[in-house]
Amino acid sequence: MLQQNVYATIITIGDELLIGQTIDTNSAWIAQELNKIGIWVHRRLAVGDVWKDIWQSLEEESRLSDVILITGGLGPTADDITKPLLCQYFGGKMVVNTEALQNVKHIFEVYLKKPMLERNLKQAEVPDTCTVIQNKRGTAPGMWFEKNGKIYMSMPGVPHEMKGMMLHSVIPQLSEKFGLPPIVHRTLLTAGIGESFLAERIREFESTLPANIKLAYLPNYGMVKLRLSAHGNDPRTAAKLEAEFDMLKQQITDVLVADSDTTMQEVVGNILKERKLSLSTAESCTGGYIAHQFTQIPGSSAFFKGGVITYSNELKEKFVDVQSATLKNNGAVSRETVLEMAEGVLRHTGSDYSIATSGIMGPDGGTPEKPVGTVWIGVASRNASEAHSFHFRFDRVRNIEMATMYGLNILRKFILD
Amino acid sequence: MLQQNVYATIITIGDELLIGQTIDTNSAWIAQELNKIGIWVHRRLAVGDVWKDIWQSLEEESRLSDVILITGGLGPTADDITKPLLCQYFGGKMVVNTEALQNVKHIFEVYLKKPMLERNLKQAEVPDTCTVIQNKRGTAPGMWFEKNGKIYMSMPGVPHEMKGMMLHSVIPQLSEKFGLPPIVHRTLLTAGIGESFLAERIREFESTLPANIKLAYLPNYGMVKLRLSAHGNDPRTAAKLEAEFDMLKQQITDVLVADSDTTMQEVVGNILKERKLSLSTAESCTGGYIAHQFTQIPGSSAFFKGGVITYSNELKEKFVDVQSATLKNNGAVSRETVLEMAEGVLRHTGSDYSIATSGIMGPDGGTPEKPVGTVWIGVASRNASEAHSFHFRFDRVRNIEMATMYGLNILRKFILD
Repeated sequence: MLQQNVYATIITIGDELLIGQTIDTNSAWIAQELNKIGIWVHRRLAVGDVWKDIWQSLEEESRLSDVILITGGLGPTADDITKPLLCQYFGGKMVVNTEALQNVKHIFEVYLKKPMLERNLKQAEVPDTCTVIQNKRGTAPGMWFEKNGKIYMSMPGVPHEMKGMMLHSVIPQLSEKFGLPPIVHRTLLTAGIGESFLAERIREFESTLPANIKLAYLPNYGMVKLRLSAHGNDPRTAAKLEAEFDMLKQQITDVLVADSDTTMQEVVGNILKERKLSLSTAESCTGGYIAHQFTQIPGSSAFFKGGVITYSNELKEKFVDVQSATLKNNGAVSRETVLEMAEGVLRHTGSDYSIATSGIMGPDGGTPEKPVGTVWIGVASRNASEAHSFHFRFDRVRNIEMATMYGLNILRKFILD
Repeated sequence: MLQQNVYATIITIGDELLIGQTIDTNSAWIAQELNKIGIWVHRRLAVGDVWKDIWQSLEEESRLSDVILITGGLGPTADDITKPLLCQYFGGKMVVNTEALQNVKHIFEVYLKKPMLERNLKQAEVPDTCTVIQNKRGTAPGMWFEKNGKIYMSMPGVPHEMKGMMLHSVIPQLSEKFGLPPIVHRTLLTAGIGESFLAERIREFESTLPANIKLAYLPNYGMVKLRLSAHGNDPRTAAKLEAEFDMLKQQITDVLVADSDTTMQEVVGNILKERKLSLSTAESCTGGYIAHQFTQIPGSSAFFKGGVITYSNELKEKFVDVQSATLKNNGAVSRETVLEMAEGVLRHTGSDYSIATSGIMGPDGGTPEKPVGTVWIGVASRNASEAHSFHFRFDRVRNIEMATMYGLNILRKFILD
């Protein structure tokens, strides 16, 4: 018989997480992987490099959760106290793990090509009460403990190393141990409508949702994701989820961007790839961020030819033939300039579509006519071009992100038209 | 007399944080701001949109902390349960707050230019047991509660709105209430040395640090930050911290990039600005990410002219004059190609310095001679140029980030030489 609900806590250890020097991206990834094997992360906790705080968190979370995943605090340097603490918490004594030792030696011989340090040798020591989770990507081994029916594991905080351990060891072992059906999510992406108005549109739909299907609104960068979730342990529930998801889609066709948990750049990239069309970019105010959205997609060279970053007016003229009269009469932040940029980069690269941006991202550089946050976005194909303006009211980095996401949506609609 | 230690917990509410759909950047920012006024965040907790879990977290954290900051769960849509829960937890009943109502009306009239919805009106309702924290940047008001000597506040999860409330209301009020000296951090940035080797270099220094000064290692992207921390309530402690920091710097001059908590791109940008020099970029494998590092810095147009993203070979020839013979004989990922790219973009933009990248970021596209992760980085000035190769072993996004950070360090050293 299947156990119905397995709850997990993720504990991340490190002062750097508490003082805001590091942003925790590990927990989000871990939660997604655990969801796939039916384990629900109901608490995520960050504590500092403080013996009392770590100890207390282990005691508390073991009352509230079945599985406790710990990341961080395993590096070779002296601010790490996690391993001795775990040794004491679970009893036992420190012993050298032969396989972990060979791994450390191997990494130094083959990759680092340096003599090993004493402190790296110590990394191969683990409490004799744990099962070692080998680390193929680094020198710190992971540890798996069991106590009073609860499972604890400790992994390094380096994302690449933690992910290797999770995928190769932890996930397969937890999956085998609990044998749970996955928690099923169906997510869609909307753009061009605010959270309140979207909620108003689907008020009826929401009120008739069965109790075992949950709806959530996830607003971000002028887009809103809608997510339906259910425990997938019953085929009827899964079928019902699909039916509800279809119904939801039908009510918002005009603002629907994609019916999967995807990104705007992937949606645009897929349209271009399917139609065998190519894209180029001419960025001023977004400064390479639009190109980065596309080039981080695996295989993007199939549709992305490249582009220019024309931060100075001089380069706007030189690289994409913006006329000096246009810059003089209308300014760099204008409909005329972004249209010439988009058309110019299209011509120079021979691409089928292009996108261009010019704006004032702040904190300085605004004028009464063109305040900080003013952005023009132009798109072009061989037969047509159009431009739109926006006024964002955020800080510089967020203005860049917003201009990028609004620009990608304009491009998407322009290609689809 | 000053209270010596004030501990805070940050609770973030939302399933999206637990299933990994959203990465929490709010907590890091909040922790930094609280540190500045001497409040130490010793726990950060994320829970889902579940009544029992939120209630439980309030009970627990009020035992462990003096200040409990809650973000999220205040939007206009029906998956939000935070406000009714707080109303019940702190007693009292829901009432309309006049100022919050005026704010909601104002936002709809002036910015959204749409009729207000019933659900937005409800956003102006708050428990009568709270003091309202007005939200100038959105429709959801914040709430400040006090109970049994503990302070609780609830703010929206939208970063821009939360930050406005923190800066305008919460931080000044907490600062006045506790009157604490700041927690002082001194951070430096190193590059080109691993965590273990750095620890070995400063082992003596570390062992003689006074007990009230803490050292931490923060490795990231091939760089390591070192941070010394102390409670700044005694002028002698602050002076001692400075003295220790100076001593630390002296031991690592050869790998020291900056003696402040900064980024590689800001270091490079500052050198260029001080010397009134300009920069351009020619990116293939980093696809705009290097340009984005510079263009997100306020005022970067003072030194950054722009550049090209030559993703296709065709554009490498067209935009920066890479010779087809070079591409044919050496391939796009080669010393020769990145040198021609760097020299070409320097010529075309008339900049003083340039950087160029070409590589195979994965997951596909590798060959036995040039496996996935192979990257060439070239830098040029009017008199000189040089190229370096790397082999990164991460996923695509991290390979892009690593190539960018290694490239920036090469550029920094090239300019300083």
